[in-house]
Parts: sequence; structure tokens; C-alpha cells
Amino acid sequence: MLIRGGTVITMTGPEAVYPDGVVAVEDGVIRYAGPRSGAPSEVLAPGWAGREIDATGRLVLPGLVNTHTHAAMVLLRGYADDMRLMEWLQTKIWPVEAALTPEDIYWGTALAAAESLLAGVTTFNDMYIFEEEAARAVEALGIRAVLCRGIIGSGPDFQSRVEEARALLERWHGGAGGRITTLLAPHAPYTVPPAELETIAGLAADWGVGIHIHLAETRDEIEILRKQYGKSPFEIAHEAGLTRHLVVAAHCVHATDRDIELFAQAPGGGVAHCPVSNLKLACGVAPILKWKAAGVSVGLGTDGAASANQLSLWGEMRLMALLQKNASGDPAAFTAYDAVYAATAGGAAVLGLQDRIGTLEPGKRADIILVNTSRPSLTPVHDPFSTLAYSTNPGDVETVLVDGRVVVEEGRLVTGDLAEIVAKAREQARALLARAAAARG
Amino acid sequence: MLIRGGTVITMTGPEAVYPDGVVAVEDGVIRYAGPRSGAPSEVLAPGWAGREIDATGRLVLPGLVNTHTHAAMVLLRGYADDMRLMEWLQTKIWPVEAALTPEDIYWGTALAAAESLLAGVTTFNDMYIFEEEAARAVEALGIRAVLCRGIIGSGPDFQSRVEEARALLERWHGGAGGRITTLLAPHAPYTVPPAELETIAGLAADWGVGIHIHLAETRDEIEILRKQYGKSPFEIAHEAGLTRHLVVAAHCVHATDRDIELFAQAPGGGVAHCPVSNLKLACGVAPILKWKAAGVSVGLGTDGAASANQLSLWGEMRLMALLQKNASGDPAAFTAYDAVYAATAGGAAVLGLQDRIGTLEPGKRADIILVNTSRPSLTPVHDPFSTLAYSTNPGDVETVLVDGRVVVEEGRLVTGDLAEIVAKAREQARALLARAAAARG
Repeated sequence: MLIRGGTVITMTGPEAVYPDGVVAVEDGVIRYAGPRSGAPSEVLAPGWAGREIDATGRLVLPGLVNTHTHAAMVLLRGYADDMRLMEWLQTKIWPVEAALTPEDIYWGTALAAAESLLAGVTTFNDMYIFEEEAARAVEALGIRAVLCRGIIGSGPDFQSRVEEARALLERWHGGAGGRITTLLAPHAPYTVPPAELETIAGLAADWGVGIHIHLAETRDEIEILRKQYGKSPFEIAHEAGLTRHLVVAAHCVHATDRDIELFAQAPGGGVAHCPVSNLKLACGVAPILKWKAAGVSVGLGTDGAASANQLSLWGEMRLMALLQKNASGDPAAFTAYDAVYAATAGGAAVLGLQDRIGTLEPGKRADIILVNTSRPSLTPVHDPFSTLAYSTNPGDVETVLVDGRVVVEEGRLVTGDLAEIVAKAREQARALLARAAAARG
Repeated sequence: MLIRGGTVITMTGPEAVYPDGVVAVEDGVIRYAGPRSGAPSEVLAPGWAGREIDATGRLVLPGLVNTHTHAAMVLLRGYADDMRLMEWLQTKIWPVEAALTPEDIYWGTALAAAESLLAGVTTFNDMYIFEEEAARAVEALGIRAVLCRGIIGSGPDFQSRVEEARALLERWHGGAGGRITTLLAPHAPYTVPPAELETIAGLAADWGVGIHIHLAETRDEIEILRKQYGKSPFEIAHEAGLTRHLVVAAHCVHATDRDIELFAQAPGGGVAHCPVSNLKLACGVAPILKWKAAGVSVGLGTDGAASANQLSLWGEMRLMALLQKNASGDPAAFTAYDAVYAATAGGAAVLGLQDRIGTLEPGKRADIILVNTSRPSLTPVHDPFSTLAYSTNPGDVETVLVDGRVVVEEGRLVTGDLAEIVAKAREQARALLARAAAARG
């Protein structure tokens, strides 16, 4: 396949913008991405491409990477907003989650995958339950995903969740043509005791996978751990051995210089920054400039739609830049390029997928999106990074490829029946709330 | 015209949500809006409506009100981002603005109107130059606007701008079938001296119009005025007599309790809150909860696209809520309803148009939008205010009416040739930058 005529943005650097660019894809892999003048002659020869996509007036860039979500929570989108965190969890979210079924997870994840793809998000990193159902939805919809069975507690509960994680790994790691991988996902240091975190670190070594965890989301969490263990979440994670592995750490809002130093020792992973969720729950603004200065990779995450309401990363990109400018008092401290980088190459690095996705480079999987700049809201394009970071909305994404396969075309999902997915998800959500209400009595 | 089958949200209170609602429009005016069961029998009778709009699966609400922008600056969208304010103005914006022509303003405003209408923004409050050209574009595109010739300086410059404002008033106040009104727009207390502000206050009384001004946007501004006059921007505005009139005050980021008290004395108007622009230029977070507590109306503004990059209010709504939650440390301190209110009824009150627009009530002008909730990103709808404030994007707006006239249908502009507007705006922007570069030598 040949994508030609558009402005190709490889995300290999702020200068790598090619107004008359070409992307050549072979067997789901990028063979060439760059200026037309530098393309191998055979890919431009008539007949080479089985299909050509005319990208005139489009920006062509890597698919976006959502580094932290709870995908099936889309069923609870808008169900309980404007509440304090503990009240929200105890009176609303936990009672409903207790009533979740595998079918809820399937249709919730299908809805999440559809929303994501239509917004140009080609990869998401999920932490939730019944992840084998999530895997089936990911396989069907054609998105790429890191799927993690969330693990909490100790004793038999802990053990059974670890067994589910093992089953997920055995059945789905490398599944769906390589689009699915898994991580070990201890929920957080305040829900998984240190001894169990050590067990997880050992399993990560045995299984050869990394870690996905929530760290330092709220001030309450910091205080609770300080009282209970006399340590910060990062100290606990480090002492349990987690930082000997790739660690995807969601939130990282509250961190001392020492915490940042400890976390920077991990051999891979990084910060899954969720700015919308953090503000919505009044958690604060993560010190992204500090994390970056310490050499830690930073990606963007939406968190679950029950808190953040959207799975698009366009709002997150914009908010990330706005917050870092305002917090530093310097509009130049964080740029449009920095935001687009976090949503693409940065996110890929956080997930340990930097060799497969995140940039348009030969040998990488062809996860590619086209943004139509003929919309009035994207007119004119003086700087494509400004257009992407500050002006683009989900509806501006026109074409989406995952593994070289067109999954969204002219803004329409081609890998599933969207009306059916929406109707089923709506029905599952209705039935779920009815079950939860019945259980409450 | 009859809009039926949708969820009607009148914005007269958080409880005024009617799942099987009806809006009846006669001669551009709302005759009835509410539950079908309460509708006058004749409007439901066959043949009453010349046209029916099936709103099944749609949220039906008042058009959004953008209380502060510089519309034609869309030509400079993305032209100079990620820069410090004074460097931005001096090296980028001012040199280009010096090269602006009336034709730039026409096509820039047409582009802004198209972008606004497609996003469901049915009214904007503009402060810029060549406003008679802006009026022509507003008339052509069918949007509602408050148009203000920005006034700066003193002496002959001041006088000539006042004369332009007078000409605008005489020619266009109440023009385009009543869709255009004007305000007197002294730019700010740091660009218009106190004596000239007094002159403006006198003219406001003579002409019977209110004021549109920038107040307390940056910390620098506060310091400069403190040094020069020993006063805050609000004290200066108050002492010049501006607060004897309706005052639309853009930004209001930095305000003491005394400032808030002074401004609350104005007989109308309020705060045009521009959260995206304020963060982008690292100005801070306006104390909206304090302004509201003092009884001051608060609306939302985008500011110009050269700083804020979009003229949609959906991102502003979401950001307003997120920032107030985070700043107060309380996720419940500012709700989804509060955000939607600011974007509709609140904005109308700020502009002094509360008798004409901002809610769906009998006697008001029929400025109405329909949001299609069948998109996966808006599924499911547990609470329509959450859906609107936190999940809706510009592309979800399907139908838009201004003065009872359909101006956007199935997401397409019907009052202008969109491809022509985009092409002309792009060409004007290109030529504008070329002229500015030539002038620089």
C-alpha cells in the first residue's frame, strides 16, 4: 500500500515533516516513510501498490497510543461525575463493578475500541477484569492493545488473580497477529501489600513481561502509605523490585526528587500521564518537566471513561501542553511537538513498544492515521504540530491503519458494525445498573 | 417549525430535562419548549409545522455563546504558538496585524463563523478591526454576533477609532435582522489611559450600549498598572465610570476581593472566562467560584484562535470544570451543569442578551443546537449534562438553528460555500504573511 500526496510527519524529530511525503507499506510493515524524492523507485512505480491512498491535504502520522485506561468502563461514562473520589468509588463505582459480567467487558471494550479507532488511537493499555473478553473484542475490532488483568489484595484473592493473569498471558500474549501483548498489573501499593508486590516482581522476571501499576495519583494515597509503611509509593515499588523491570506507572502526580531518581532506574516503561482524570478528581498537575528532565519516558493516557469521559487523546494532548506551560509560568516550556510526541513515540516507549510502533520508520508496524486539514477548524495550517496539538478533534481523523489494515475509512469504522456495538453497549450498561441496583436491594 | 422526539434541555435549571421533549418555533421565536405532554395542542396538530425535525437520540439545547474572541485571527491560527506573550506580540502578531486588510477580515470572520456554527456556537462577541467587514460576513453566514471596534491609545488615534465605532453602531447595531449588536470596546486599562476610559463611559451613556474590555489577564498587567497608577485594572475601570454600564470583561484572572466587589456593582455584563487562552499564555486560572459567589455572571470565551487555536466552546467547557475542581481541591465544587450553563445562559447574561438567547423559553430567539448521542464517544448517556460538558466534541453537533433558520444540517454548513471559505481564508492568510514579511524588509 502507498500513501501519497500528504504531509508525512514521522515523529522522529521536529524537523521530520515532509509536505510531499510518501509512506509505503508492505505486509503490515512500513517499508519507507519520508519525502517522495527519497522513496525507493520501485514503490513509486505503477503497479507496486495494491492500493493507493491519496493523502492530499492530510497530515499523515503515527497512530496515537493511550498508555493507561480501563476500557470497558465506557459503560459507566457520565454515570457518576462531579463527586469526591472515595464517595465516587464507594457509593457508585465499586457496587456497579461488582455486578460486571464477561459480556459487559466484551461490549464495553468493543465500544472503547471503536471510539478509540475513530479518534485515531491505534493502541491502548488496559487494566481491568475478564480480560480474555477484552482480548476477543480487540481481536475483532482490529485495534492494538496491551491487556492487563488488574491484581489486588493478598492470599487466595491475589492468587486467583495471578492465575487469571497467567492464563491471559498464555492465551493472548502475542495474539491477534501480534497486536495483543500483556503486562503484570498490580493495581497500586495501597491495594497490593509489599510482599505481594515482591511476588509480582519475581513473576515479571519468570514470565518476561513488564509491570503496569497506578502510582502517586492522590495526596491521600501518599499519606496512607506514609502512615502505614513510612515510605512513598515509589520507594515501595522500588524496594519490592518492580523497578528492575519495565514499569508503566499511571499518574505519577506527586513525586519527590528522590522518587523520580528511583523510578528513573527502571530499565523501561515510564509515566502514563492522565491530565484530564487528574484534574477531574482534583488530584493535581503531574510534574512532567521534571520527569522528562530525569530521562523518564512520558506518554498520555485517558484513564477510564468513568472518570475522564473520553478515550480520545486530542484533548489530553492539548491539556498536557496547557498545564505544563501554566505550571511553569513559561509558554515556551512545553511545545506542540512535545505533546504530539507524548501521544505517539513517547507512549510507545512507555509501553516498551518503541521497536514496533510510535514513529513512521522502516520496519515498524504500519499504525498510521490521516487527519483532514480541510475542515475550517484546522484552517490554515501554519505549523502541523500546532494544528495537531491544539486544533485537532476526534472528528478530524479520516483514515486509520493498524498493522497496515484500513480500520477506519472516511471517518467510518470498517472492522465492526458500529450501530450494533453502540446498541449492545447501551443495553449492557442499562442491564448492569439494574443488576447493581437489585443487589443493593 | 417543530423539533420533536429528542431530549430537550432548556437551561432554565438542572432539572429542566425533558426526554420526550418538543420545541415549537414561530417566526424565528420559541413558542414552546418542554415536555410533549405540556405542549399547546395546536403545535402538535398535523399541518401546524411547516417543517419537522426528528430529534430522536439527540440532545436539544440552546446555541453556545462565545463571550470573547477576535474572530478574524483564525487566519493566524497556529502561526506563533509556544512563545512568551510579549515576544509573541512584538515579533509575530503585531507586525502581521499591521498588514491586515478589510478583505482579510471578511474572509477570516467568515471562516470563524463557519467554524463556530459547525461546532454549535451561535453567537460570538468580537473585538477587532474593520468590523464593518466582519458584519458583512456575519450577515452572510447567518450567525449572531456582538461586533466591537477595538479602541486603543489617545489623541487622534483614539478619536478615529471612536468614529469607526460610531459608524459601526449607526450602520450595524440591530442589523442583519437584529442578529448584530455592538458594544464600545476600549482594549484594556494598559492601552487606553484613564481619561479616555472616562470618555468611553460617557459615550456608553450617550449611545446606550455597554462596554467590552480586557481586564486582569496577566500578572505583568497588574504590576504595570500598579506602578503607573497605583491601582488595579478593576479600580481604574470603576473610577473611570465603566461599571456604571454593562461591562463584558475578558479574562479577570487576577482579582482581589475588593476588585470583585467593585466589578459586581456593574448593572450588567460579567466575566468572559477564557481558560484555554489563559493556560496557553501561562496567565493562571481565573477564580470563577469567587466571581460566581459575588453574583457576577460568568460566560465562556475562546479568545482569538492565534492564542487558543479553536473557536469551539466544548473544550472550554470541559477545561473550565476541570480547572475549578482542581483549584478548589473539590471535584464537586463545579459541576457539568455549571459548565453548560456558562456556555449558554451564563454567556447570554454576560453579553446582556439574556432576554433574547441563552435558554429555550417562549419569547426567546430560536438559537438551538442538536447533539447526536449515537456516536460511540457519547454512549451511553447516563446524565446529559455530563455528556455535554465532558464528552461532546465539535463533530457531534448535527443541526444548528439561528433565529429559527437551519444554518447547519447533518453537520454541513448551509449558509455558505464551505470549500470556498476555506480556500479564500487560506489564500488571505498566505498573502497576509507575505505582505508582513515584505514590510519587515
